[in-house]
Amino acid sequence: MDIVKRIRLNPLERRDQLIELGMTMLSLRGLEQISVEDIAKKAGISRGLLFHYFASKRDFHLAIVQHASDELLERTAPDPSLTEPAEILRDAMRRYLEYVEDNRESYISFMRGPASTDPEMRAIFDSNRAEIARRTIAHLPIPPHVSAARTDLAVRGWIAFIEEATVSWLKDPQITRDELIDMNVQALPTLTLSPGLAAALLD
Amino acid sequence: MDIVKRIRLNPLERRDQLIELGMTMLSLRGLEQISVEDIAKKAGISRGLLFHYFASKRDFHLAIVQHASDELLERTAPDPSLTEPAEILRDAMRRYLEYVEDNRESYISFMRGPASTDPEMRAIFDSNRAEIARRTIAHLPIPPHVSAARTDLAVRGWIAFIEEATVSWLKDPQITRDELIDMNVQALPTLTLSPGLAAALLD
Repeated sequence: MDIVKRIRLNPLERRDQLIELGMTMLSLRGLEQISVEDIAKKAGISRGLLFHYFASKRDFHLAIVQHASDELLERTAPDPSLTEPAEILRDAMRRYLEYVEDNRESYISFMRGPASTDPEMRAIFDSNRAEIARRTIAHLPIPPHVSAARTDLAVRGWIAFIEEATVSWLKDPQITRDELIDMNVQALPTLTLSPGLAAALLD
Repeated sequence: MDIVKRIRLNPLERRDQLIELGMTMLSLRGLEQISVEDIAKKAGISRGLLFHYFASKRDFHLAIVQHASDELLERTAPDPSLTEPAEILRDAMRRYLEYVEDNRESYISFMRGPASTDPEMRAIFDSNRAEIARRTIAHLPIPPHVSAARTDLAVRGWIAFIEEATVSWLKDPQITRDELIDMNVQALPTLTLSPGLAAALLD
Protein backbone atom coordinates (compact mmCIF):
# COMPACT_ATOMS: atom_id res chain seq x y z
CA MET A 1 0.00 0.00 0.00
CA ASP A 2 1.63 3.16 -1.25
CA ILE A 3 -0.63 5.86 0.10
CA VAL A 4 0.33 7.30 3.46
CA LYS A 5 -2.56 7.26 5.93
CA ARG A 6 -4.43 10.55 5.81
CA ILE A 7 -3.75 12.14 9.14
CA ARG A 8 -3.71 15.75 10.21
CA LEU A 9 -0.16 17.02 10.33
CA ASN A 10 0.99 20.43 11.43
CA PRO A 11 2.79 22.45 8.73
CA LEU A 12 6.31 21.51 9.87
CA GLU A 13 5.42 17.84 10.14
CA ARG A 14 3.81 17.93 6.70
CA ARG A 15 6.88 19.60 5.19
CA ASP A 16 9.14 16.97 6.78
CA GLN A 17 6.86 14.21 5.56
CA LEU A 18 7.06 15.49 1.97
CA ILE A 19 10.85 15.73 2.14
CA GLU A 20 11.01 12.21 3.61
CA LEU A 21 8.88 10.91 0.75
CA GLY A 22 11.21 12.71 -1.67
CA MET A 23 14.21 11.07 0.01
CA THR A 24 12.62 7.63 -0.29
CA MET A 25 12.00 8.18 -3.99
CA LEU A 26 15.49 9.57 -4.35
CA SER A 27 16.97 6.31 -3.07
CA LEU A 28 15.38 4.58 -6.08
CA ARG A 29 15.91 7.09 -8.89
CA GLY A 30 17.69 10.34 -9.76
CA LEU A 31 16.51 13.76 -8.67
CA GLU A 32 15.39 14.60 -12.20
CA GLN A 33 12.86 11.75 -12.11
CA ILE A 34 11.12 12.83 -8.91
CA SER A 35 7.64 14.01 -9.78
CA VAL A 36 5.76 16.42 -7.59
CA GLU A 37 2.50 14.69 -8.58
CA ASP A 38 3.70 11.30 -7.31
CA ILE A 39 4.86 12.75 -4.01
CA ALA A 40 1.59 14.61 -3.41
CA LYS A 41 -0.34 11.41 -4.25
CA LYS A 42 1.73 9.33 -1.83
CA ALA A 43 1.24 11.96 0.90
CA GLY A 44 -2.50 11.93 0.21
CA ILE A 45 -2.55 15.67 -0.49
CA SER A 46 -3.22 17.74 -3.59
CA ARG A 47 -0.48 19.04 -5.90
CA GLY A 48 -1.63 22.53 -4.91
CA LEU A 49 -1.12 21.86 -1.21
CA LEU A 50 2.44 20.64 -1.87
CA PHE A 51 3.14 24.04 -3.40
CA HIS A 52 1.92 25.59 -0.19
CA TYR A 53 5.05 24.14 1.48
CA PHE A 54 7.50 24.65 -1.38
CA ALA A 55 7.40 27.65 -3.70
CA SER A 56 8.29 25.55 -6.76
CA LYS A 57 9.34 22.10 -7.90
CA ARG A 58 12.88 23.43 -7.82
CA ASP A 59 12.54 24.58 -4.19
CA PHE A 60 11.23 21.13 -3.33
CA HIS A 61 14.23 19.52 -5.03
CA LEU A 62 16.62 21.88 -3.22
CA ALA A 63 15.00 21.00 0.12
CA ILE A 64 15.48 17.28 -0.65
CA VAL A 65 19.15 17.81 -1.57
CA GLN A 66 19.74 19.85 1.59
CA HIS A 67 18.10 17.11 3.64
CA ALA A 68 20.22 14.41 1.95
CA SER A 69 23.34 16.45 2.65
CA ASP A 70 22.43 16.91 6.34
CA GLU A 71 21.69 13.21 6.64
CA LEU A 72 25.02 12.20 5.11
CA LEU A 73 26.88 14.51 7.52
CA GLU A 74 24.90 13.15 10.47
CA ARG A 75 25.49 9.52 9.51
CA THR A 76 29.23 10.04 9.02
CA ALA A 77 29.91 12.23 12.06
CA PRO A 78 33.12 11.21 13.84
CA ASP A 79 32.41 8.76 16.66
CA PRO A 80 33.37 10.62 19.88
CA SER A 81 34.19 7.32 21.62
CA LEU A 82 37.13 6.77 19.25
CA THR A 83 40.45 8.49 19.85
CA GLU A 84 42.91 7.25 17.21
CA PRO A 85 42.83 9.27 13.94
CA ALA A 86 43.18 6.06 11.90
CA GLU A 87 40.18 4.49 13.67
CA ILE A 88 38.06 7.64 13.38
CA LEU A 89 38.78 7.85 9.67
CA ARG A 90 38.13 4.19 8.91
CA ASP A 91 34.91 4.18 10.93
CA ALA A 92 33.60 7.32 9.21
CA MET A 93 34.51 5.92 5.77
CA ARG A 94 32.66 2.69 6.55
CA ARG A 95 29.54 4.69 7.40
CA TYR A 96 30.02 6.88 4.30
CA LEU A 97 29.87 3.77 2.11
CA GLU A 98 26.85 2.45 4.03
CA TYR A 99 25.06 5.72 3.33
CA VAL A 100 26.10 5.60 -0.33
CA GLU A 101 24.87 2.02 -0.75
CA ASP A 102 21.54 2.90 0.89
CA ASN A 103 21.19 5.82 -1.54
CA ARG A 104 23.03 4.68 -4.63
CA GLU A 105 20.78 6.19 -7.30
CA SER A 106 20.65 9.59 -5.65
CA TYR A 107 24.41 9.54 -4.97
CA ILE A 108 25.17 8.83 -8.63
CA SER A 109 22.65 11.46 -9.69
CA PHE A 110 24.15 14.10 -7.33
CA MET A 111 27.68 13.33 -8.53
CA ARG A 112 27.04 12.91 -12.24
CA GLY A 113 23.62 14.30 -13.09
CA PRO A 114 22.56 17.84 -13.99
CA ALA A 115 22.29 18.66 -10.26
CA SER A 116 26.08 18.44 -9.98
CA THR A 117 26.53 21.58 -12.08
CA ASP A 118 23.43 23.53 -11.08
CA PRO A 119 24.79 26.52 -9.11
CA GLU A 120 22.35 26.30 -6.18
CA MET A 121 22.59 22.51 -5.90
CA ARG A 122 26.35 22.77 -6.20
CA ALA A 123 26.46 25.26 -3.33
CA ILE A 124 24.84 22.60 -1.11
CA PHE A 125 27.30 19.90 -2.27
CA ASP A 126 30.25 22.25 -1.83
CA SER A 127 29.22 23.18 1.68
CA ASN A 128 28.84 19.44 2.41
CA ARG A 129 32.37 18.82 1.05
CA ALA A 130 33.71 21.75 3.06
CA GLU A 131 32.31 20.20 6.26
CA ILE A 132 33.82 16.80 5.39
CA ALA A 133 37.15 18.54 4.70
CA ARG A 134 36.93 20.45 8.01
CA ARG A 135 36.29 17.27 9.99
CA THR A 136 39.03 15.43 8.14
CA ILE A 137 41.63 18.12 8.75
CA ALA A 138 40.62 18.36 12.42
CA HIS A 139 41.75 14.75 12.98
CA LEU A 140 44.75 14.81 10.66
CA PRO A 141 48.28 14.83 12.08
CA ILE A 142 50.02 17.18 9.60
CA PRO A 143 53.80 17.49 9.79
CA PRO A 144 54.92 21.08 10.59
CA HIS A 145 56.73 21.57 7.24
CA VAL A 146 53.50 21.08 5.22
CA SER A 147 51.59 24.32 4.54
CA ALA A 148 47.89 24.67 5.40
CA ALA A 149 47.21 25.67 1.76
CA ARG A 150 48.74 22.44 0.48
CA THR A 151 46.81 20.37 3.02
CA ASP A 152 43.58 22.10 2.07
CA LEU A 153 44.11 21.41 -1.65
CA ALA A 154 45.11 17.79 -0.97
CA VAL A 155 42.02 17.16 1.18
CA ARG A 156 39.73 18.63 -1.51
CA GLY A 157 41.49 16.41 -4.05
CA TRP A 158 41.10 13.42 -1.73
CA ILE A 159 37.34 14.01 -1.51
CA ALA A 160 37.20 14.09 -5.35
CA PHE A 161 39.25 10.86 -5.36
CA ILE A 162 36.76 9.16 -3.01
CA GLU A 163 33.75 10.37 -4.98
CA GLU A 164 35.18 9.19 -8.30
CA ALA A 165 36.33 5.83 -6.93
CA THR A 166 32.96 5.33 -5.20
CA VAL A 167 30.83 6.17 -8.24
CA SER A 168 33.00 3.93 -10.46
CA TRP A 169 32.77 1.15 -7.88
CA LEU A 170 28.97 1.44 -7.54
CA LYS A 171 28.61 1.15 -11.32
CA ASP A 172 31.04 -1.74 -11.67
CA PRO A 173 32.23 -3.24 -8.36
CA GLN A 174 35.47 -4.97 -9.35
CA ILE A 175 36.92 -4.89 -5.83
CA THR A 176 35.28 -5.67 -2.49
CA ARG A 177 33.76 -3.00 -0.23
CA ASP A 178 36.56 -3.57 2.29
CA GLU A 179 39.19 -3.07 -0.41
CA LEU A 180 37.50 0.20 -1.41
CA ILE A 181 37.44 1.36 2.24
CA ASP A 182 41.15 0.50 2.57
CA MET A 183 42.02 2.32 -0.63
CA ASN A 184 40.06 5.44 0.33
CA VAL A 185 41.43 5.72 3.86
CA GLN A 186 45.02 4.87 2.94
CA ALA A 187 44.92 7.52 0.22
CA LEU A 188 44.42 10.34 2.73
CA PRO A 189 47.70 10.36 4.68
CA THR A 190 49.75 9.73 1.56
CA LEU A 191 48.10 12.69 -0.18
CA THR A 192 48.40 14.97 2.85
CA LEU A 193 51.94 13.82 3.72
CA SER A 194 51.04 12.41 7.14
CA PRO A 195 53.41 9.42 7.48
CA GLY A 196 52.37 8.69 11.07
CA LEU A 197 48.73 8.22 10.09
CA ALA A 198 49.76 6.21 7.03
CA ALA A 199 51.64 3.75 9.24
CA ALA A 200 48.69 3.49 11.67
CA LEU A 201 46.30 2.72 8.79
CA LEU A 202 48.51 -0.08 7.53
CA ASP A 203 48.51 -1.76 10.97
CA MET B 1 41.33 43.70 -36.60
CA ASP B 2 39.02 40.87 -35.71
CA ILE B 3 37.76 39.73 -39.11
CA VAL B 4 39.76 36.96 -40.74
CA LYS B 5 40.77 37.84 -44.34
CA ARG B 6 38.17 36.55 -46.76
CA ILE B 7 39.94 33.85 -48.65
CA ARG B 8 38.60 30.83 -50.45
CA LEU B 9 38.98 27.80 -48.26
CA ASN B 10 38.11 24.26 -49.19
CA PRO B 11 35.41 22.67 -47.01
CA LEU B 12 37.82 20.85 -44.68
CA GLU B 13 39.98 23.95 -44.23
CA ARG B 14 36.88 26.03 -43.53
CA ARG B 15 35.63 23.53 -40.98
CA ASP B 16 39.03 23.55 -39.25
CA GLN B 17 39.12 27.35 -39.33
CA LEU B 18 35.71 27.54 -37.60
CA ILE B 19 36.80 25.06 -34.93
CA GLU B 20 40.04 27.01 -34.41
CA LEU B 21 38.05 30.22 -33.96
CA GLY B 22 35.83 28.38 -31.48
CA MET B 23 38.93 27.20 -29.60
CA THR B 24 40.29 30.74 -29.43
CA MET B 25 37.01 32.00 -28.01
CA LEU B 26 36.92 29.05 -25.66
CA SER B 27 40.24 30.10 -24.13
CA LEU B 28 38.55 33.34 -23.06
CA ARG B 29 35.11 32.16 -21.97
CA GLY B 30 33.05 29.05 -21.25
CA LEU B 31 31.48 26.89 -23.94
CA GLU B 32 28.00 28.17 -23.07
CA GLN B 33 29.04 31.70 -24.04
CA ILE B 34 30.30 30.84 -27.52
CA SER B 35 27.95 32.36 -30.04
CA VAL B 36 27.61 30.96 -33.53
CA GLU B 37 26.98 34.49 -34.83
CA ASP B 38 30.29 35.80 -33.46
CA ILE B 39 32.24 32.91 -34.94
CA ALA B 40 30.65 33.31 -38.38
CA LYS B 41 31.38 37.03 -38.27
CA LYS B 42 35.01 36.48 -37.37
CA ALA B 43 35.36 33.92 -40.16
CA GLY B 44 33.77 36.39 -42.57
CA ILE B 45 31.01 33.98 -43.51
CA SER B 46 27.25 33.95 -42.98
CA ARG B 47 25.56 32.18 -40.08
CA GLY B 48 23.86 29.99 -42.71
CA LEU B 49 27.18 28.88 -44.17
CA LEU B 50 28.45 27.87 -40.72
CA PHE B 51 25.45 25.53 -40.48
CA HIS B 52 26.59 24.01 -43.75
CA TYR B 53 29.60 22.63 -41.81
CA PHE B 54 27.87 21.80 -38.54
CA ALA B 55 24.31 20.49 -38.35
CA SER B 56 23.51 22.56 -35.25
CA LYS B 57 25.03 24.81 -32.61
CA ARG B 58 25.32 21.73 -30.46
CA ASP B 59 27.24 19.84 -33.17
CA PHE B 60 29.58 22.81 -33.44
CA HIS B 61 30.12 22.80 -29.66
CA LEU B 62 30.74 19.03 -29.69
CA ALA B 63 33.33 19.47 -32.48
CA ILE B 64 35.10 22.15 -30.42
CA VAL B 65 35.15 19.92 -27.31
CA GLN B 66 36.48 16.98 -29.35
CA HIS B 67 39.19 19.23 -30.78
CA ALA B 68 40.12 20.52 -27.31
CA SER B 69 40.34 16.93 -26.05
CA ASP B 70 42.58 15.88 -28.98
CA GLU B 71 44.80 18.90 -28.42
CA LEU B 72 45.19 18.18 -24.69
CA LEU B 73 46.16 14.57 -25.44
CA GLU B 74 48.61 15.70 -28.12
CA ARG B 75 50.23 18.32 -25.89
CA THR B 76 50.61 15.91 -22.98
CA ALA B 77 51.79 12.84 -24.93
CA PRO B 78 54.67 11.06 -23.15
CA ASP B 79 58.05 12.28 -24.42
CA PRO B 80 59.65 9.23 -26.15
CA SER B 81 63.14 10.52 -25.37
CA LEU B 82 62.52 10.02 -21.64
CA THR B 83 62.90 6.59 -20.08
CA GLU B 84 62.37 6.96 -16.32
CA PRO B 85 58.68 6.68 -15.23
CA ALA B 86 59.17 9.51 -12.72
CA GLU B 87 60.57 11.80 -15.42
CA ILE B 88 57.87 10.88 -17.94
CA LEU B 89 55.15 11.60 -15.38
CA ARG B 90 56.59 14.91 -14.17
CA ASP B 91 57.20 16.13 -17.73
CA ALA B 92 53.64 15.22 -18.83
CA MET B 93 52.15 16.88 -15.74
CA ARG B 94 54.13 20.06 -16.45
CA ARG B 95 52.67 20.17 -19.97
CA TYR B 96 49.19 19.37 -18.65
CA LEU B 97 49.33 22.47 -16.45
CA GLU B 98 50.71 24.56 -19.34
CA TYR B 99 47.72 23.50 -21.43
CA VAL B 100 45.34 24.24 -18.56
CA GLU B 101 46.80 27.70 -17.99
CA ASP B 102 46.55 28.48 -21.72
CA ASN B 103 42.88 27.40 -21.65
CA ARG B 104 41.76 28.21 -18.13
CA GLU B 105 38.22 29.39 -18.86
CA SER B 106 37.41 26.42 -21.06
CA TYR B 107 39.03 24.00 -18.60
CA ILE B 108 36.90 25.33 -15.73
CA SER B 109 33.82 25.28 -17.95
CA PHE B 110 34.46 21.66 -19.04
CA MET B 111 35.04 20.54 -15.45
CA ARG B 112 32.30 22.50 -13.69
CA GLY B 113 29.88 23.84 -16.29
CA PRO B 114 26.78 22.18 -17.78
CA ALA B 115 29.02 20.46 -20.38
CA SER B 116 30.45 18.29 -17.60
CA THR B 117 27.13 16.46 -17.17
CA ASP B 118 25.84 16.53 -20.76
CA PRO B 119 25.93 12.86 -21.85
CA GLU B 120 27.56 13.46 -25.26
CA MET B 121 30.09 15.98 -23.91
CA ARG B 122 30.80 13.67 -21.02
CA ALA B 123 31.50 10.79 -23.41
CA ILE B 124 34.28 12.92 -24.95
CA PHE B 125 35.73 13.82 -21.52
CA ASP B 126 35.50 10.20 -20.35
CA SER B 127 37.30 8.91 -23.42
CA ASN B 128 39.96 11.60 -22.82
CA ARG B 129 40.31 10.44 -19.20
CA ALA B 130 40.46 6.80 -20.32
CA GLU B 131 43.39 7.65 -22.63
CA ILE B 132 45.19 9.53 -19.82
CA ALA B 133 44.58 6.52 -17.54
CA ARG B 134 45.87 4.11 -20.22
CA ARG B 135 49.07 6.12 -20.71
CA THR B 136 49.56 6.48 -16.98
CA ILE B 137 49.16 2.78 -16.29
CA ALA B 138 51.51 1.94 -19.20
CA HIS B 139 54.40 3.67 -17.40
CA LEU B 140 53.47 2.66 -13.88
CA PRO B 141 55.53 0.10 -12.00
CA ILE B 142 52.79 -1.81 -10.13
CA PRO B 143 53.81 -4.33 -7.47
CA PRO B 144 52.60 -7.88 -8.34
CA HIS B 145 50.34 -8.15 -5.26
CA VAL B 146 48.17 -5.20 -6.39
CA SER B 147 45.18 -6.17 -8.57
CA ALA B 148 44.57 -4.55 -11.95
CA ALA B 149 41.04 -3.59 -10.78
CA ARG B 150 42.43 -1.70 -7.79
CA THR B 151 45.03 0.06 -9.96
CA ASP B 152 42.36 1.05 -12.46
CA LEU B 153 40.13 2.51 -9.75
CA ALA B 154 43.07 4.32 -8.12
CA VAL B 155 44.18 5.88 -11.43
CA ARG B 156 40.62 7.08 -12.15
CA GLY B 157 40.53 8.53 -8.65
CA TRP B 158 43.95 10.13 -9.19
CA ILE B 159 42.68 11.88 -12.35
CA ALA B 160 39.71 13.22 -10.32
CA PHE B 161 42.21 14.35 -7.65
CA ILE B 162 44.26 16.25 -10.26
CA GLU B 163 41.20 17.84 -11.84
CA GLU B 164 39.81 18.99 -8.48
CA ALA B 165 43.17 20.29 -7.24
CA THR B 166 43.81 22.03 -10.56
CA VAL B 167 40.41 23.76 -10.76
CA SER B 168 40.69 24.86 -7.10
CA TRP B 169 44.22 26.13 -7.75
CA LEU B 170 43.21 28.05 -10.90
CA LYS B 171 40.45 29.79 -8.97
CA ASP B 172 42.58 30.56 -5.92
CA PRO B 173 46.31 29.80 -6.35
CA GLN B 174 47.51 29.47 -2.77
CA ILE B 175 50.52 27.33 -3.67
CA THR B 176 53.04 27.71 -6.52
CA ARG B 177 52.71 25.90 -9.85
CA ASP B 178 55.75 23.76 -8.96
CA GLU B 179 54.17 22.78 -5.64
CA LEU B 180 51.00 21.76 -7.48
CA ILE B 181 53.03 19.69 -9.98
CA ASP B 182 54.86 17.99 -7.09
CA MET B 183 51.64 17.27 -5.25
CA ASN B 184 49.93 15.84 -8.35
CA VAL B 185 52.80 13.59 -9.41
CA GLN B 186 53.64 12.39 -5.89
CA ALA B 187 49.98 11.49 -5.38
CA LEU B 188 50.05 8.86 -8.13
CA PRO B 189 52.45 6.24 -6.73
CA THR B 190 51.04 6.59 -3.25
CA LEU B 191 47.52 5.98 -4.55
CA THR B 192 48.54 3.11 -6.80
CA LEU B 193 50.89 1.54 -4.23
CA SER B 194 54.07 1.92 -6.32
CA PRO B 195 56.77 2.56 -3.69
CA GLY B 196 59.61 2.44 -6.25
CA LEU B 197 58.11 5.29 -8.26
CA ALA B 198 57.31 7.21 -5.07
CA ALA B 199 60.96 7.10 -4.05
CA ALA B 200 62.10 8.20 -7.53
CA LEU B 201 59.71 11.19 -7.44
CA LEU B 202 61.04 12.33 -4.09
CA ASP B 203 64.64 12.35 -5.43
